[in-house]
Amino acid sequence: MKISIIGLGYVGLPLAVEFSKLYETIGYDVNEKRVREIKASIDINGDIEEEILSNLNAKITDSVDDISDSDVYIITVPTPIDENNDPDMTLLMSACETVGRHLDRDNIVIFESTVYPGTTEEICVPILESESGLAYISETNKDTILDGGFYCGYSPERINPGDKEHYLTDILKITSGSTNEVAKKVDDLYKSIIVAGTYLAQSIKVAEAAKIIENTQRDVNIALINELSIIFKKMNIDTKDVLDAADTKWNFSRFDPGLVGGHCIGVDPYYLAYKSIQVGHIPEMILSGRKINDGMPTVIADQIEQLVKQQKKELSSCKILIMGLAFKKDCKDLRNSKVFDLVSILNNYGSTIEVYDPIVNQDEIGEDSSYTIIQEPKKGYYDVIIIAVDHKLFIDIGIDKIKDFGNDDLITFDVKSVFPPDKTTSRL
Amino acid sequence: MKISIIGLGYVGLPLAVEFSKLYETIGYDVNEKRVREIKASIDINGDIEEEILSNLNAKITDSVDDISDSDVYIITVPTPIDENNDPDMTLLMSACETVGRHLDRDNIVIFESTVYPGTTEEICVPILESESGLAYISETNKDTILDGGFYCGYSPERINPGDKEHYLTDILKITSGSTNEVAKKVDDLYKSIIVAGTYLAQSIKVAEAAKIIENTQRDVNIALINELSIIFKKMNIDTKDVLDAADTKWNFSRFDPGLVGGHCIGVDPYYLAYKSIQVGHIPEMILSGRKINDGMPTVIADQIEQLVKQQKKELSSCKILIMGLAFKKDCKDLRNSKVFDLVSILNNYGSTIEVYDPIVNQDEIGEDSSYTIIQEPKKGYYDVIIIAVDHKLFIDIGIDKIKDFGNDDLITFDVKSVFPPDKTTSRL
Repeated sequence: MKISIIGLGYVGLPLAVEFSKLYETIGYDVNEKRVREIKASIDINGDIEEEILSNLNAKITDSVDDISDSDVYIITVPTPIDENNDPDMTLLMSACETVGRHLDRDNIVIFESTVYPGTTEEICVPILESESGLAYISETNKDTILDGGFYCGYSPERINPGDKEHYLTDILKITSGSTNEVAKKVDDLYKSIIVAGTYLAQSIKVAEAAKIIENTQRDVNIALINELSIIFKKMNIDTKDVLDAADTKWNFSRFDPGLVGGHCIGVDPYYLAYKSIQVGHIPEMILSGRKINDGMPTVIADQIEQLVKQQKKELSSCKILIMGLAFKKDCKDLRNSKVFDLVSILNNYGSTIEVYDPIVNQDEIGEDSSYTIIQEPKKGYYDVIIIAVDHKLFIDIGIDKIKDFGNDDLITFDVKSVFPPDKTTSRL
Repeated sequence: MKISIIGLGYVGLPLAVEFSKLYETIGYDVNEKRVREIKASIDINGDIEEEILSNLNAKITDSVDDISDSDVYIITVPTPIDENNDPDMTLLMSACETVGRHLDRDNIVIFESTVYPGTTEEICVPILESESGLAYISETNKDTILDGGFYCGYSPERINPGDKEHYLTDILKITSGSTNEVAKKVDDLYKSIIVAGTYLAQSIKVAEAAKIIENTQRDVNIALINELSIIFKKMNIDTKDVLDAADTKWNFSRFDPGLVGGHCIGVDPYYLAYKSIQVGHIPEMILSGRKINDGMPTVIADQIEQLVKQQKKELSSCKILIMGLAFKKDCKDLRNSKVFDLVSILNNYGSTIEVYDPIVNQDEIGEDSSYTIIQEPKKGYYDVIIIAVDHKLFIDIGIDKIKDFGNDDLITFDVKSVFPPDKTTSRL
């Protein structure tokens, strides 16, 4: 069996590592730089170690011809949103075109990318059909397709970037297929690499829906806690104190306030909302959640402005140090980080902004006149220090050393409440 | 030490049972009928068994003079909402008046009723002060009150009606007090009866907030799942299949679609919303959740209307059996049950409605021309059967026997998805 994995990001690369232990495996990516790096045993995401990559059994390639004659194609390309927060499926559709051109009878195309329910059969299958000239075989039409065709599967990725405790093989994986027989094959295939086991869903649509609601639920729950933090701030109640108390109930789910960025929780709900509106329901819970979470950089900036004004100062004259730029703790990933929004809002106030985040890849940050990336914070210099991301590194530096970076009137704002409340000026 | 418990509902009665094992305990309620029943060893809620009540050490009374000379007053009265969904604190305020008139120096008044943060000190304390003529002693004023006064505490009830696994003493209890010293006393008092232990919160406000967010979180989460069920219904996806699949992820929180009634989850969020608006924030998440959950009877009625129309029939000519009237499974409690809303909507369509719920107290249901309470469903009679509540009794009857109640074109709607999907016509 030959497996081709299309897309070697944080989803595709671990799959290539694991499948190549058992099967002939091709790892294909259109990004030449990424392919060159993996071949040099470098995973810039920090998920797969150099030693594993140097012994990798898979053929890593940016040459599309290498994927020919595969039995199984696994598509793991990103599914982001566009500037209107609508699904941007150009990478997914382009991957379908690529695979479609190589498709043979009885091949199985498995999608791992997060999509709204129905995408595989409504968007991907027509492209695969037209590019391949083959028929798509499903449980309902399988007896009518006499000259063969291809099958599909959907097995959503559940990778948690930066989470070393939950590696690909440790996370139970949902599987599905376009016929009962192929569903079983897809399930067996993943079962061969996933130690935690698999869960065979009733249909591709159910598997698609299961994945999208996981992150939607997280988004809505964080949004609720963010809303509570806004209410409690107005009432002089510390949100962390309240959450610690509520968390003593057996059925309370712990979530904490903060910025919601990245390419999953802040993105996936928009996919489901898009489809929901298409079928005639305006999804109030989902969109309220998105609105509140996307508004948190403004909430933080407003709260900091109030603190500055209490000192009879203006944000425009403030030198601000922002600690953390990644979209979440201990993660190199900058994609869709809401710290950029916070920087931009504070920049609009006229503040002078320096950003410190040694975790992220410095050359990926990009240039922007609204802030300066620094390698080391200055001492006794800043009016405001915002600890925006709860990197372990910052906790290790400690709040006392962090306060040494500030001047005598220093305001410290602990977005993720990592330090004791009496050690910082304020927190969410 | 003498403890008086004000209010002998599902919160106060278990407290009276447990405290009376260790302390002189008075159980006071304004409801003569309730007092008479408890004295006759009957708990109409079904929480406390006859044998326990017949050996009860507490003095159960509707005579207010009996609460005199207590050291501790524990107020457990209901805090419902009015017809505008605003907090109705008349019972709470009236309890404060009663206690205030009996209050002596160094007494502690502990509140267990669910309220918005700030209620104890903004609403209750002023009444206690004016009725008693005594000063309220808090951590901030304790050194300035020279001639003594009274203290307050807040320890939210976490009773789960109908849940035999989580009895009062099995649920960790949050405590708080108006001074550090009294907080410790309140904590020790509860520690003496709560086997599961206590959690001493930083302040009364934090304890109030912790309680109100617990039920708010449940409400919002059920609302999200209800919204998902609305979306998935339009896409012909079975919601339970999706939830079962998503639930295989380690950090997914399982909630199921359904009607949200009762005196907690459907009520408490309105208290927090009320206060939130008062301090200047319109709580979008909380109110969206309430709106969706309060709208579910309409959603169910609409889905049933569609099924009826597919049979070329009209709801106006349908004989409908509704199984279950309680606000949740295996619970006698009818308060704020959304099944009444469903009945009322279907009645507006002109349907003939019979309601079957042997679990609830039949004489508490009340009379209403829009439906008939039946003791036994007829055989071969109904056009539509709605299994509205997932009482164990209904599961024991089984779907095949339930279907025998219907005619040949029977439509079955399984609100809580308790039966296999191929055994009923539809479900949420």
